[in-house]
Amino acid sequence: MKASSSRPVVALLTDFGLGDGYIGIMKGVIAGITPDAQMIDITHEIAPQHIGEAAWILASTYRYFPAMTAFLCVVDPGVGSDRSAIALHAGDWFFVGPDNGLFSYILNEPALHGAVELANPAYRLSQVSSTFHGRDIFAPAAAYLASGAGDVFSKLGPSLDPANLVRLSTVTATWHGSAIEAHIVHIDRFGNLITGIPLSMVPDLFTAEQACITFPEQGMRVEQRRRFFAEGAENGQAFIYGDSSGYVGIAVRNGNAAKTLGVACGVPITFDISPG
Amino acid sequence: MKASSSRPVVALLTDFGLGDGYIGIMKGVIAGITPDAQMIDITHEIAPQHIGEAAWILASTYRYFPAMTAFLCVVDPGVGSDRSAIALHAGDWFFVGPDNGLFSYILNEPALHGAVELANPAYRLSQVSSTFHGRDIFAPAAAYLASGAGDVFSKLGPSLDPANLVRLSTVTATWHGSAIEAHIVHIDRFGNLITGIPLSMVPDLFTAEQACITFPEQGMRVEQRRRFFAEGAENGQAFIYGDSSGYVGIAVRNGNAAKTLGVACGVPITFDISPG
Amino acid sequence: MKASSSRPVVALLTDFGLGDGYIGIMKGVIAGITPDAQMIDITHEIAPQHIGEAAWILASTYRYFPAMTAFLCVVDPGVGSDRSAIALHAGDWFFVGPDNGLFSYILNEPALHGAVELANPAYRLSQVSSTFHGRDIFAPAAAYLASGAGDVFSKLGPSLDPANLVRLSTVTATWHGSAIEAHIVHIDRFGNLITGIPLSMVPDLFTAEQACITFPEQGMRVEQRRRFFAEGAENGQAFIYGDSSGYVGIAVRNGNAAKTLGVACGVPITFDISPG
Repeated sequence: MKASSSRPVVALLTDFGLGDGYIGIMKGVIAGITPDAQMIDITHEIAPQHIGEAAWILASTYRYFPAMTAFLCVVDPGVGSDRSAIALHAGDWFFVGPDNGLFSYILNEPALHGAVELANPAYRLSQVSSTFHGRDIFAPAAAYLASGAGDVFSKLGPSLDPANLVRLSTVTATWHGSAIEAHIVHIDRFGNLITGIPLSMVPDLFTAEQACITFPEQGMRVEQRRRFFAEGAENGQAFIYGDSSGYVGIAVRNGNAAKTLGVACGVPITFDISPG
Repeated sequence: MKASSSRPVVALLTDFGLGDGYIGIMKGVIAGITPDAQMIDITHEIAPQHIGEAAWILASTYRYFPAMTAFLCVVDPGVGSDRSAIALHAGDWFFVGPDNGLFSYILNEPALHGAVELANPAYRLSQVSSTFHGRDIFAPAAAYLASGAGDVFSKLGPSLDPANLVRLSTVTATWHGSAIEAHIVHIDRFGNLITGIPLSMVPDLFTAEQACITFPEQGMRVEQRRRFFAEGAENGQAFIYGDSSGYVGIAVRNGNAAKTLGVACGVPITFDISPG
Repeated sequence: MKASSSRPVVALLTDFGLGDGYIGIMKGVIAGITPDAQMIDITHEIAPQHIGEAAWILASTYRYFPAMTAFLCVVDPGVGSDRSAIALHAGDWFFVGPDNGLFSYILNEPALHGAVELANPAYRLSQVSSTFHGRDIFAPAAAYLASGAGDVFSKLGPSLDPANLVRLSTVTATWHGSAIEAHIVHIDRFGNLITGIPLSMVPDLFTAEQACITFPEQGMRVEQRRRFFAEGAENGQAFIYGDSSGYVGIAVRNGNAAKTLGVACGVPITFDISPG
């Protein structure tokens, strides 16, 4: 029943806010290059220069967009420095932005087809400022990629080895025997704690005999598991659940897990699971 | 001079805010199903779970959208409970969302063609979470409805009797002899009080000999009428006017009627009118 | 490599905020008239009725939009009064809104092709309220202009002499011998002071022997010039630079020039430059 998308899609994710007109300028540039683009805002309210937050929101979002969507991501504290401007082709999608960790989760995508540096002036505005690469470099690259014209990706610039691209250390979830070492990567507006552990990494989350998340720095453990919020205990005890983002989460029913547990974004966790 | 719309339109109204990327995800889903959709945000800043506010903003908005627009409305405190997920066909438009009162005004639309339950899995995402029906159920239904392909509406699920759908009690405006019993249903950002009385219910508002709004609980009356704000008294006295939303309103010239009168959203009123 | 835009573009700039659904209503009206319109928000967060701020954001934005874009600009404290509703054709673009100074910079555009009053009822909604001209007059005019159908511009209403249109006094930058008299017209969110002096007016900004901005009211001078922020002194001293908006700016490296200098929007400046 699902039709394939025949219209170019550009999805935008920045920390620019909506007050200064910067998003409008970037969309004006895109409309000039790819008039038929469907432009979709993910969010522009990332806390200024908070790369980790943007990386996670991108990770929880991109799989719901049509194939060939170009993601224009600009959280760029290093604009004007020597950080690279890059594009990735991963899964069915393209990603454009600075090489500063913003694409940490995307680099874990199984089908990582390639990375390039945005070096070709033919795919930039004719004048490039030192302070607004979103307008001058990233928006044009995303617009050309979304247009699907020819093989834009390989023409954008020289190939890069993805192994050399910047990754945030908090993103990785790694098996050590029967335990996974990971971090809290996001706190949503309800206070739910989202871990960096994809649900696909623990298919037996609800069938295993035991599962437990430990906060080594805080000396705390969460051992209950719930399939639905409505199953959560009424006593304010935290439980492990599968978040709608596709990651393991920790919640308190009708409460705020971050406040209840006193946990901030970025803290390390250990996830222990005993096969059922 | 007005062309008929040949392009699918989806209009979105939620309490999700713009910070978490939820709106972007729903639009990504829509773009995958109906690539050519014109997606228009009504607002996403409804106070969390404030169904009454969302219902009124929808009521003041939908008549300005093209025929066949699908309204995707998600203010859904009961997500995951047994509240129904529904679609309505009313006037020239479609409406999709939870059955919790959000469509109270739409159910008063004279041309109410039908209601269905969103039960057909062919018009949902393949996986349905328990916490994000906006993404998994409502966005797909709105996208298919807007596409205009075949007779989507009747295929979405079994028909429902509109008489059984949830209506907010504050919405109704009812004649009792020469008086209308109604409520204050919205306070706009200027402090104007909007009543639940459509202007079409009182075509003689400005020609009748007398008109008066009484607040029984507050023991107050407003008796002046003004066609334009600029006609309002300079002395801070409240007056009755016809709001641009199509409902009877109460304002204070260059002032804030809600503060002046000390009235909150939801209070009952009586409107008395004497034919001219 | 740049394709010409074959799709109508309407760009929106208002002080309506996003909470009340007013932007959604205007877009619904546009979609009914020009279904294929690409609608791009510049910003809706202009401080209420702050015409000068809106005028500058428009000035820093419009050149990045495709030819034939219709700009729908509504910051309109005088709605319902006798201020005119106008459209301008300047450069490759159209501009629609109230005649209250909002288009002060646009009126300086070298290629100012004409101005008209929005008087023709065929290009309005059939009912015009006294409080929401954005919906009833400006949105329809912008939609028809963007559609490119026939010669809409000349049909909108009688021609106006641009010399008679309202201009904000702070906008003008004027040569007096070797000095330019101008004002601070914008303070961005980083505290950078943007002057009303287009960079095109001082092509020798970085090659001239000396350049100096004086604040007569504050008795201060800024004499350093920097091509990049990273060139700025670490000691918190203010410097002159070329802002990415296309205007001369004043910044403090890693600091807030507005706070450092104690300068507010609107203050007069004198720019002295000695040829190199």
